[in-house]
Amino acid sequence: MKNIALTFSMVVGVSLLFAQESDSTQIRRIFDEALTRGQAYENLRELCKNVGNRLSGSEGAEKAVEWSVAKMESYGFDEVWLEPTMVPKWDRGAKEKCAILPEGKELEALALGFSVGTDGPLEAEVVQFSTMQALRDAPEGSLDGKICFLDQAMNAKLIDTFSAYGGCSGARVRGPSVAAKKGAVGFVMRSLGLRADDFPHTGVMYYSEDGDSIPAFALSTNAAHELAREIDRRGSVTIRMEADCKNFPDIESNNVVCQINGSEFPDQIITVGGHLDSWDVGEGAHDDGAGVVHSLEVLRILKSLHITPQYSIRCVFFMNEENGTRGAKAHARACAERGDKHVAAMESDRGGFTPRGFTVDGESPVIEYLSQWEPLLEPYNLHFIRKGYGGTDIKPLKEFGNPPLIGFVPDSQRYFDVHHTANDVFENVNKRELELGAASMASMIYLIDKYGVPEELKN
Amino acid sequence: MKNIALTFSMVVGVSLLFAQESDSTQIRRIFDEALTRGQAYENLRELCKNVGNRLSGSEGAEKAVEWSVAKMESYGFDEVWLEPTMVPKWDRGAKEKCAILPEGKELEALALGFSVGTDGPLEAEVVQFSTMQALRDAPEGSLDGKICFLDQAMNAKLIDTFSAYGGCSGARVRGPSVAAKKGAVGFVMRSLGLRADDFPHTGVMYYSEDGDSIPAFALSTNAAHELAREIDRRGSVTIRMEADCKNFPDIESNNVVCQINGSEFPDQIITVGGHLDSWDVGEGAHDDGAGVVHSLEVLRILKSLHITPQYSIRCVFFMNEENGTRGAKAHARACAERGDKHVAAMESDRGGFTPRGFTVDGESPVIEYLSQWEPLLEPYNLHFIRKGYGGTDIKPLKEFGNPPLIGFVPDSQRYFDVHHTANDVFENVNKRELELGAASMASMIYLIDKYGVPEELKN
Repeated sequence: MKNIALTFSMVVGVSLLFAQESDSTQIRRIFDEALTRGQAYENLRELCKNVGNRLSGSEGAEKAVEWSVAKMESYGFDEVWLEPTMVPKWDRGAKEKCAILPEGKELEALALGFSVGTDGPLEAEVVQFSTMQALRDAPEGSLDGKICFLDQAMNAKLIDTFSAYGGCSGARVRGPSVAAKKGAVGFVMRSLGLRADDFPHTGVMYYSEDGDSIPAFALSTNAAHELAREIDRRGSVTIRMEADCKNFPDIESNNVVCQINGSEFPDQIITVGGHLDSWDVGEGAHDDGAGVVHSLEVLRILKSLHITPQYSIRCVFFMNEENGTRGAKAHARACAERGDKHVAAMESDRGGFTPRGFTVDGESPVIEYLSQWEPLLEPYNLHFIRKGYGGTDIKPLKEFGNPPLIGFVPDSQRYFDVHHTANDVFENVNKRELELGAASMASMIYLIDKYGVPEELKN
Repeated sequence: MKNIALTFSMVVGVSLLFAQESDSTQIRRIFDEALTRGQAYENLRELCKNVGNRLSGSEGAEKAVEWSVAKMESYGFDEVWLEPTMVPKWDRGAKEKCAILPEGKELEALALGFSVGTDGPLEAEVVQFSTMQALRDAPEGSLDGKICFLDQAMNAKLIDTFSAYGGCSGARVRGPSVAAKKGAVGFVMRSLGLRADDFPHTGVMYYSEDGDSIPAFALSTNAAHELAREIDRRGSVTIRMEADCKNFPDIESNNVVCQINGSEFPDQIITVGGHLDSWDVGEGAHDDGAGVVHSLEVLRILKSLHITPQYSIRCVFFMNEENGTRGAKAHARACAERGDKHVAAMESDRGGFTPRGFTVDGESPVIEYLSQWEPLLEPYNLHFIRKGYGGTDIKPLKEFGNPPLIGFVPDSQRYFDVHHTANDVFENVNKRELELGAASMASMIYLIDKYGVPEELKN
């Protein structure tokens, strides 16, 4: 009996060793493919330079959909399809202006997404708040006829810059309506960026239904600093805001999807995706052109290496993450209609920077299970697979049997230098960093496909 | 007895917990200081923009020495001093030229350091080699009157780009002399960079004493690609090289050193340093302006936080790392003369990128001891303290009682995009990445100072 047990454990030991070796060989092949024959970087160049920025509802977005379909079809995957969705349409109009009066000294500014226009010049005294809480605490009527200046800085002490962003983004989304309730006629805020520079950062805001819609701008960090200094110096400062923005009725757009069908379980899906839309300045290179080309590259690499997946590997280019997440909702509806089963989903929406690891929104036993693969990924500087955020666009897939939602985590230090700015351009993406991201994601998808995610861990 | 043992272990347990807590608080304060009141970035701006590049023996190098002394003195450390060293002096002269004949199509090129000039235009047919080994294998006389073109690419598959560089840098250092021995009259090589671009990478080369000194250039990767394509197309290609470089007699320069004296063991030293010299193109921002301002910032942070070190903390700006390491040797001699005892030494010479960890050239028990601190550093995305390279300039300190030689390891992906090029400028350094590097180094130095390195582990 003892000998049999010994033999059995030796066999298991040997086969586990063999699996580890063959996995590490396969992961090495995935990285070699990405680093020496990768197409993510050239695909990103096409998306940035031939399509450009692509806000939902814009011509750019439709051009991006066409580019995506053609690109996916060129790779000869098993299926390519569109998933229609209605999306909002907002247009910035002529370049917005903001100036300190009476000199007319210009402040670099961008209207926030969904902001109304000013209907001619809007001139008023500014009232400065250094935190969103201070604005919330201001008495009703205290901003009557004034422009609210929310001069709240991101917390530079936080190592993860997404945490610093998370601590401030609510102020952008809700700040204009809070200010309007206090009587403000306009809203300007310090951009959500960590660097002192001249690039204002736009981003979505939503007006509350029971209040006035007032024009809302982000000032570059340098411009906010200048305005604060003038307030300090003069006591009272008047500024002029001018914007031409307009909201239009919703129009139809699409997610773009492609798939390699599974050899064993074609109705069970491993999804990988990013969002195709971007803000209407710059080229949406890191946000989220990188995530789009990352995701497509995962499928291309698997196919190039003749890795036949057990499960269906699906790549989704989501529309409208930036201002509505309508694409994510439409995708979840389409999955429900098809009766898809979901093994796991992965999203890349933190830029094309050097890889750090993965965070997983899922049950602890699932995360423990996935984290067994850390030693296979550590040689590629991927140091963690741990509990954390999955992604905005894959979140609705949680309802399909609670699959792990996996967020790809690149280094975050440079992301908020370019996020939602005219500076988010192809030239600011590094080729190797982008390629390593695609290979990291492909390696993780390869392991999930090979070993699956045991049902009993998910509940 | 059992109760006493229990009580004792509880006390030890509590005090260890307390130490961990106080260390993690102190490290948090170090990072806060670097990220919110850091001076590394502004110091780097001064060094890059007010001093500029600073090859040993140049006016820039002397200006850098003056800047360093003034900067160190401004911080009020206990001591600031110069350590004289003779250094080589090589001058590039007028911008070198390289062109494909007969059209005269220009190829972006930089002479390698110590290259002789061409003494007027040098025109010859090129013979291409795709590896250094192929060049070594070429028969003597087979390059008579020809220009050797070493078209060897760095290995993009290696995740650590320094490994890829290490695999090729010998070809730059020795390639010209190997080619000369085969009869070549000139040498051009593909730049040691991983990106396709127009920036040639210079770097040091040494002529062997028993051979001819032939002019040696690096071509940008794009230019090398173009030359290779022309050879492919035409079979035989002639190029023209022109350079004006000159070697001069050695002249005197200096390391610049400052120190916070230890409160308990002032004659025992923890050294941290980078090199002050740079190549003569660009601004030496990542190589090694970053290392210089990192090292200085370590001392500034400790002083600002009123951390009184037990050991003396010494910051060394080494002269002449790039072409001679004379400063490192002079520093070791000065240490010997003073009879310094060395606890540990740390070097930053891999750029100002986002931190990854530390590699240690030292005995395994010492490395194991240091790696106990990994959990304290992991919240800052420092994922390893492991065996590896220390640094060129601190290497001679090994003879002083075998202290651990610690290399700070930032992410390596972008380093060889800028290394030794006109593109190594301040604008390509990210503020937060630089600051995190300084804080990482300061945290490690803080721990070494607090706990020391037990003698018995070093032998």
